[in-house]
Amino acid sequence: MSGAWLDHIRWTEDGLVPVIAQEQGSGQVLMFAWMTRESLALTAEEGYAVYWSRSRRKLWRKGEESGHRQRIHEIRLDCDEDVILLIVEQIGGIACHTGRHHCFFRRLHDGEWQTVEPVLKDPKAIYDG
Amino acid sequence: MSGAWLDHIRWTEDGLVPVIAQEQGSGQVLMFAWMTRESLALTAEEGYAVYWSRSRRKLWRKGEESGHRQRIHEIRLDCDEDVILLIVEQIGGIACHTGRHHCFFRRLHDGEWQTVEPVLKDPKAIYDG
Repeated sequence: MSGAWLDHIRWTEDGLVPVIAQEQGSGQVLMFAWMTRESLALTAEEGYAVYWSRSRRKLWRKGEESGHRQRIHEIRLDCDEDVILLIVEQIGGIACHTGRHHCFFRRLHDGEWQTVEPVLKDPKAIYDG
Repeated sequence: MSGAWLDHIRWTEDGLVPVIAQEQGSGQVLMFAWMTRESLALTAEEGYAVYWSRSRRKLWRKGEESGHRQRIHEIRLDCDEDVILLIVEQIGGIACHTGRHHCFFRRLHDGEWQTVEPVLKDPKAIYDG
């Protein structure tokens, strides 16, 4: 995990950085997750998004089970050097574990969260298929 | 700060939620910040983004000094109910305190962070002008 570029990042006390994944072309914000130094280094090396699962406390190669990997087009860093933006190609067109194109499918309307994006594939078919 | 919709959000232990601001129309990811329950309620009420400044520990009405406010078009919530996506109109076309259109102006290229977005307005002119 060499690379001076990794030293530029202001990691949290837990050694994490927040990451936004945006779809190349459509510009759709697909999801939000976290990375460690190791997972970001692997993301750059392998050319596919590797996150850090905070709940499972392990590396999470996005799409490992579902096939819905994210091919990296660009890795960007913000002004404060503490947030990463990935521009990705979303393989299979499904970023969300609910089977939707992206994770931000609830929209606030008249004081209620309304689901405004369709399920493209049954999650059972994604993970057991 | 009533509103059952606020109770749906899974706030961090510190009472925060991460927020991504995306530009209406262009789809550009402008910035990343945090909100408290109060700031999110005010964002919905006032129709302009009100963040929580973690460094200053106070409400941060984006654009208060610079005039570069963010008019709210949509407020979205993700699948895990712990990340907010705002779709906004960026008043003045400048979201970043460096005077750039957005905060993600560094791109990883051959192992180095390169600045790939121009300064549109001198920060001195933004904040002292």
